[in-house]
Amino acid sequence: MLIVQKFGGSSVANAERVFNVAGIITEKYKEGNDVVVVVSAQGDTTDDLIEKAKEINPKASRREMDMLLAAGEQISIALLAMAIEKLGYPVVSLLGWQAGFNTNSTYGSARIKRIDTERIKAELDKKKIVIVAGFQGINRFGDITTLGRGGSDTSAVAIAAAMHADLCQIYTDVDGVYTADPRLVKNAFKLDEITYDEMLELATLGAQVLNNRSVELAKKYNIELEVLSSFTKVPGTKVKEATKMEKMLIKGVAKDTNVARVMLVGIPDVPGVAFQIFSRLAKAHINVDIILQSVGRDNTKDITFTVASDKGEEAVAAIREYAEKVGAKSLSYDSNVAKISIVGAGMETHEGVAARMFEALGDAGINIQMISTSEIKISVLIDAADADRAVQVVHSAFFDIPNSF
Amino acid sequence: MLIVQKFGGSSVANAERVFNVAGIITEKYKEGNDVVVVVSAQGDTTDDLIEKAKEINPKASRREMDMLLAAGEQISIALLAMAIEKLGYPVVSLLGWQAGFNTNSTYGSARIKRIDTERIKAELDKKKIVIVAGFQGINRFGDITTLGRGGSDTSAVAIAAAMHADLCQIYTDVDGVYTADPRLVKNAFKLDEITYDEMLELATLGAQVLNNRSVELAKKYNIELEVLSSFTKVPGTKVKEATKMEKMLIKGVAKDTNVARVMLVGIPDVPGVAFQIFSRLAKAHINVDIILQSVGRDNTKDITFTVASDKGEEAVAAIREYAEKVGAKSLSYDSNVAKISIVGAGMETHEGVAARMFEALGDAGINIQMISTSEIKISVLIDAADADRAVQVVHSAFFDIPNSF
Repeated sequence: MLIVQKFGGSSVANAERVFNVAGIITEKYKEGNDVVVVVSAQGDTTDDLIEKAKEINPKASRREMDMLLAAGEQISIALLAMAIEKLGYPVVSLLGWQAGFNTNSTYGSARIKRIDTERIKAELDKKKIVIVAGFQGINRFGDITTLGRGGSDTSAVAIAAAMHADLCQIYTDVDGVYTADPRLVKNAFKLDEITYDEMLELATLGAQVLNNRSVELAKKYNIELEVLSSFTKVPGTKVKEATKMEKMLIKGVAKDTNVARVMLVGIPDVPGVAFQIFSRLAKAHINVDIILQSVGRDNTKDITFTVASDKGEEAVAAIREYAEKVGAKSLSYDSNVAKISIVGAGMETHEGVAARMFEALGDAGINIQMISTSEIKISVLIDAADADRAVQVVHSAFFDIPNSF
Repeated sequence: MLIVQKFGGSSVANAERVFNVAGIITEKYKEGNDVVVVVSAQGDTTDDLIEKAKEINPKASRREMDMLLAAGEQISIALLAMAIEKLGYPVVSLLGWQAGFNTNSTYGSARIKRIDTERIKAELDKKKIVIVAGFQGINRFGDITTLGRGGSDTSAVAIAAAMHADLCQIYTDVDGVYTADPRLVKNAFKLDEITYDEMLELATLGAQVLNNRSVELAKKYNIELEVLSSFTKVPGTKVKEATKMEKMLIKGVAKDTNVARVMLVGIPDVPGVAFQIFSRLAKAHINVDIILQSVGRDNTKDITFTVASDKGEEAVAAIREYAEKVGAKSLSYDSNVAKISIVGAGMETHEGVAARMFEALGDAGINIQMISTSEIKISVLIDAADADRAVQVVHSAFFDIPNSF
């Protein structure tokens, strides 16, 4: 079996943890598997390097930033390889470019164009454990690029896809995907399985277990992922196309506080207004999430939408001139909001899921400001102060009486 | 003019020093020169990385050590490039392999086979300042190699040779080559010029200003070197083929305490004995420096030789069996010795240089244990306790009355 394993920075933060990871890797190798391992930079290395760069030049070019940051994984792959040598197994470490990661030239958030797996295959043929630097690649000019935060997950899934791996294990500091943040909801429990789409919704909503691009990639190439902890020996959560038939429609409750609501009140109820607004936001590179447009009344309407919390002011600035031109009554934004979502692939075939969520919130006296739904999720925007309580009551409504739906 | 500049680790140890170096570089660039810069890892980075490796695996493979250590220069070139960007000049940093450093596969002390200067030339054509990671290259398997300690000097001279540079400046934390260690001899003074051969002898003898391989390379390709400080603005010492005609025959007095004397007493005075001894040392990879063989007497003779101080015990072990077989009277070693040398290309044409050195030592009551001479140097082995005083009196004898010879 060919297994790709990925270990995050906290899993290799010090010598002891490096040996722990080396133990996990060699265990799979001993069973007769081919093992390719993707590693992130140790602990806070990347942040420390960013700090060094900021001290010298906060506006350093992205090319030089990538040159700098790629050193972090170089250190961690070498140290991990040394630990595996110490345990007595054949091993070789490879930088992104040595492992064949060809990317475009978008320094800082490069996209993988292709992986030339020749070198990795040659090393596996020699029965070596192959340690690959995550997060990095090379562009057509021979310059180092990085894939951006969470890029090591993407590196791992991309190798798994290119090598047709049987399994891609993502080791992290949590032991799987939970129905809600366990620090927030004491009854939250770990899921055995989740679909790609569900995972995507949860990742977007801030569950922070798996990088979104990596899940998209896994879905595209149908790579089975397993999210598990390098610190415990318990099974994790499998992310795959179809999960077992089960009664559990809802897979999790997520909270996202990185959100701001922009309100544009009293604009003319004529065609083309929405286009004017959202094209200006697009030009300013501001991503819009939920959009709500009121029904027209007195020839005017209101448009409300959400953006990332640090983009509220920019969003207002981007559309202010237009708003004034068309005589809008008011334009403002509010960062004191949170988005609470429930995710589950089964909900679309079951009525009453939304109703149960709204009921739980209503019973708790929590006011819903906006609602957004997709086939597999329902999101509501509420006051940020109510966010934690909202997660608890919604989780309770769906999970405290198991299989009740 | 094409100038290659090399900056050591202490010259770029922190943000302030990085900007100091960036200032030196851009000054040359502003004058209209093409500038290629070779940088070492910052301050203690290399030592810190070695420490990390030792914690995990003191017997790590040299390949993985090179992978690890090469990250040090990657960090320093990126930071230096960022500083130059901040000053507003066009710049690009290149790793060893990007700069075309092809080496053999002797990890840890690789030899440069050739430099493909295409990329460096292309960047210079774009009017960029080119920052190159010293100390590192790539072998024919596409793996990272390092050139060993002092390798950045070699990188700089190799680029200067490959690019036919007009000048190669080696910036370090001392401002040139002195007639003796200034901490030891208060009258020691900086030399304006020195020949390659003199520099080689001084480097070997522990002056520690320039790496030996880099001087050999500079001599081979006739690259004019300038050793100078990145902390002061004063002219340094030029290292070149022929120096100005001058009365100064002696260029410096050097001390080397990294030496042990091995004594083999009372071995048969028959042919082949020396071969038997030194072939055994060669097989054990022990370098021998000075060799002294006594005149035979009573059909026996004595052989004394020096090795690096940490090799004394190994040397004795390597020849013990043979010594016992031939009935040697005794075999011992002594690390409490030091080698004092005077170096100067002019001495061979002038009699009395050796005599003056020996006289100075005799007047100071310092006993000479061994003597070794070459065309441009005279070395004596003395008790380690006398070493500093010996440097002072010998320096005094040659330099206190300038031009007296």
